[in-house]
Amino acid sequence: MVKRYNSEKIKQLVFKIYQAYGFSNEDSEKVAATLLYTDLHGIESHGVQRLAMYDHFIQNGKIRVQSKPEIIKETDVSAVVDAHFGLGQLNGIYSMEVAIQKAKEHGVGIVTTKNSGHYGIAGFYANLAATAGLIGMSSTNSRPAMVPTHAMKAFIGTNPIGFAMPAKPHPFIFDAATSTVPQGKIEVYRKLEKDLPAFWVAKNGTEPVTSHTDKKDLDLLRDPDANVALTPLGGVAEETGSHKGFGLGIIVEIFTSILSLGNISTEISPENLEVGPCQSFVAIDPAIFGDKEQIIERFSAYLQDIRHLPAVPGKTIYVHGDKEALAYENAKKYGIEIDDRTLEEITAIAKRLHVSTSEYLN
Amino acid sequence: MVKRYNSEKIKQLVFKIYQAYGFSNEDSEKVAATLLYTDLHGIESHGVQRLAMYDHFIQNGKIRVQSKPEIIKETDVSAVVDAHFGLGQLNGIYSMEVAIQKAKEHGVGIVTTKNSGHYGIAGFYANLAATAGLIGMSSTNSRPAMVPTHAMKAFIGTNPIGFAMPAKPHPFIFDAATSTVPQGKIEVYRKLEKDLPAFWVAKNGTEPVTSHTDKKDLDLLRDPDANVALTPLGGVAEETGSHKGFGLGIIVEIFTSILSLGNISTEISPENLEVGPCQSFVAIDPAIFGDKEQIIERFSAYLQDIRHLPAVPGKTIYVHGDKEALAYENAKKYGIEIDDRTLEEITAIAKRLHVSTSEYLN
Repeated sequence: MVKRYNSEKIKQLVFKIYQAYGFSNEDSEKVAATLLYTDLHGIESHGVQRLAMYDHFIQNGKIRVQSKPEIIKETDVSAVVDAHFGLGQLNGIYSMEVAIQKAKEHGVGIVTTKNSGHYGIAGFYANLAATAGLIGMSSTNSRPAMVPTHAMKAFIGTNPIGFAMPAKPHPFIFDAATSTVPQGKIEVYRKLEKDLPAFWVAKNGTEPVTSHTDKKDLDLLRDPDANVALTPLGGVAEETGSHKGFGLGIIVEIFTSILSLGNISTEISPENLEVGPCQSFVAIDPAIFGDKEQIIERFSAYLQDIRHLPAVPGKTIYVHGDKEALAYENAKKYGIEIDDRTLEEITAIAKRLHVSTSEYLN
Repeated sequence: MVKRYNSEKIKQLVFKIYQAYGFSNEDSEKVAATLLYTDLHGIESHGVQRLAMYDHFIQNGKIRVQSKPEIIKETDVSAVVDAHFGLGQLNGIYSMEVAIQKAKEHGVGIVTTKNSGHYGIAGFYANLAATAGLIGMSSTNSRPAMVPTHAMKAFIGTNPIGFAMPAKPHPFIFDAATSTVPQGKIEVYRKLEKDLPAFWVAKNGTEPVTSHTDKKDLDLLRDPDANVALTPLGGVAEETGSHKGFGLGIIVEIFTSILSLGNISTEISPENLEVGPCQSFVAIDPAIFGDKEQIIERFSAYLQDIRHLPAVPGKTIYVHGDKEALAYENAKKYGIEIDDRTLEEITAIAKRLHVSTSEYLN
């Protein structure tokens, strides 16, 4: 079952838990803010629901609490960060702050970060730049999940692209896996015991797997050597644009693992403590091209024109960021949704760390 | 009918034609090289087949022979170019050369160009950077062709993304409309009297138009006010990722018309001589991140691993740029393919301009 909880209280609880792991107050605050941002914007799959996974990795040493991200190569407009297997969210915030600083000083900042960890949603980091009045981009690679066009097995990660640009009344925020759907979407449908509504999963590169009861095949999605994989955006046929999602996945790999000389998708594994995903962070100041206010006004009007197009009956035209803004208003008013299983996991973690939950979970 | 012609001779003929229009020798050489690059790489829809369209625009003044692109705003890492309605290919080469120069000096160059013209294929400009040892990107906006998710009519252009990165044995070159297919693909199927094999065209935002005999609907594709449009990459449903192609189209619009404060898609029209598309050009030096040779070696090995994955029976796994490299070898050996109608058009243009064709077309 899913219930609603006060987001400020949950944020305080996450803060306390991360403090108890040994993170500094400042870092614990950042982690809590990042996870709650995600829940408040309706992307529950990547918010506090992930606490259990991070807890597992903190315990087995895949996430190293004492690590600090370090710039190992730098120019006015770029940096390579070695994250030394610290917590993904902290590496992400640090790296995007470096990109933002460079963009403010020199117009552009491009940062590529290796030996990182699972960092949540790409759009969060892109939006950090938008909040600072800049264009932001962020991507991460991940272990093999997507099948290249005409191949039989996974090779490329779900390699999402996050992109944000200031706009009124709220920023444009694009956040999309380069596979048709991310892994988490499959898990959600399986939990709900719903069949997959489209060609999201391919067996042997061409056969759709759509039944949620197809446990054997869907379990294989987590096995990089198996013949079951997520389809690229555009499906598995060139006619529907399969090579486009496939190619965008490669482009993400370039900006993450190739330029940082970090681990490429096939090297990433949850079991191996000595490897980690790579991420990229880009900030660009629109002011290097023209009057920033004029650019943002024009962009906002452009998006508004899209919203006002004649819509398919019964449908609403949403521009990227609109749904998240609506979810935010709702969650601020009524609380964030947490399912019982996630709540149990959080309670168990808190108990082990001697963090009292009573004042946060009522 | 389609016949093969010697590419060097056709290039000479294009050079002569552009010289006759009044372009300088240097510019005529660039136009000829760009169009022939396209034909030699198997993208016939955007090569010499376009001479007739450019001829029409040169005659009616939409393309201004005497115009020179001009930098109107500049920083170390960026420029805004006003192309003053010169020929798209010349604006494109100029703008990418500015981006390349900035990337060589400062690591990154981002150029946005307004009041331009139809510039051919985005991948050509991206590849100019790759040939210079850099990462290259280019995009263009265009008149409304793609329907936003849940809208009933076109609003966004086919807004392609060109991306290139040096690799061995040849560069990685990605070039893709953010719609499922570009407009030209529909024209090719209609010419061949073949039905459209997938959901490329939508009527009222949701109904597939697939019969090539559906002349009325397909003709409406060229009418921005009609209820027939190309689908975004990912189709028209969120389940298949429609919002992703739609969002990528918006991102292209940002880097082209929004940042340059040029004409957005809905303002572009072939009839209006005072408007033109906008383009973007990005060059990034991989050396700002690490040893360039090492990065390229690693990337080449990564691509090679993809090519060697187990393939779907009867299929070959192509990495982006492979098909073009094969087409190039073939065209260099056997000549480029030109259909009779295009040949007639070129002959008529040459005759009007008093350019002899006899030595080039045998």
